Amino acid sequence: MRILGVDPGLTRCGIGVIDVSSGNRLVLVDVRVIQTSPAMGLGDRVLAIKRGLVEALEEFSPDRVALERVFAQHNLRTVMGTAQASGIVLAEAAERGLSIDLHTPSEVKASVTGSGRANKEQVATMVRKLLSMSDAALLPDATDALALAICNAWRGGAGSLVSNANDQSTLTPAQQKWRDAERQSRRRG
Amino acid sequence: MRILGVDPGLTRCGIGVIDVSSGNRLVLVDVRVIQTSPAMGLGDRVLAIKRGLVEALEEFSPDRVALERVFAQHNLRTVMGTAQASGIVLAEAAERGLSIDLHTPSEVKASVTGSGRANKEQVATMVRKLLSMSDAALLPDATDALALAICNAWRGGAGSLVSNANDQSTLTPAQQKWRDAERQSRRRG
Repeated sequence: MRILGVDPGLTRCGIGVIDVSSGNRLVLVDVRVIQTSPAMGLGDRVLAIKRGLVEALEEFSPDRVALERVFAQHNLRTVMGTAQASGIVLAEAAERGLSIDLHTPSEVKASVTGSGRANKEQVATMVRKLLSMSDAALLPDATDALALAICNAWRGGAGSLVSNANDQSTLTPAQQKWRDAERQSRRRG
Repeated sequence: MRILGVDPGLTRCGIGVIDVSSGNRLVLVDVRVIQTSPAMGLGDRVLAIKRGLVEALEEFSPDRVALERVFAQHNLRTVMGTAQASGIVLAEAAERGLSIDLHTPSEVKASVTGSGRANKEQVATMVRKLLSMSDAALLPDATDALALAICNAWRGGAGSLVSNANDQSTLTPAQQKWRDAERQSRRRG
């Protein structure tokens, strides 16, 4: 089972690919960060993300894609770019018939460190340990993409697009509010 | 000059195509709404938007694309889906080398009705009048896509992706705050 994790973003979009063997053993396949300059036009930036993602999907042929679940309350400065990049990931994965799972940041942290409130450094330390890459210096976006893939390997796949959102234990109060708003939006169409 | 306007959204994505002649005369070419069900998987919804948009781009070969500028403060319930859909529009337009312009809702209203605070009905009335389609019943998303295209025809194109955001006169206080946050984000990379 090969999982491609994406930490979406316009300035830096992390992509991490891991293999999961039957005994839940994790093997690093690849990790990269697509970078675009804020000086570029918005269309060109989103297109660069698309091209980099398509390249990775074709090179590694993952079985599943794991994507960070974005909340509108987070990082007002960057949330729109993050959502635009995540739209690209959703469309490209769906076009290839790949299963897509969304995981919240706190789910991911809880998966790799045991705590939904772990800091960036703890996550990085655990990702390096779990993937036997102890001396690697990774960009945070690279670490987060690998952490997403690990979280997806352990929490399991298909269906979590919806059902993970029901797991209150890893949602902050703001995320729960957002999840409720999303549900309401689904009901109202 | 042919302009394709998009009112992005996951549940309903409006697409309006107009031709602008040398004397600024407007001619309706096509208007349609791509609809996806909230019961579908998120990836399949975004993919349906992508396919519908690509179909329209290929069928009508526009010279420019006009897209609604989305603000994170607006409609918390739907803003993430709107941004995901707009990411698709940005990438597909850029991939075809089309110029892309973003317009705020108040810019669009001001363009077609003379007031940035006009209501939906005023916008619809003016769109029908300007495009000589007085007896047509249009979905709001269709009207908004056509209004975007008209706004783009009149305000002019290339460059407004950035420079329209500087036009304080049509930004609400919340939009100005958001615009400032975006600028800051650009500076910080």
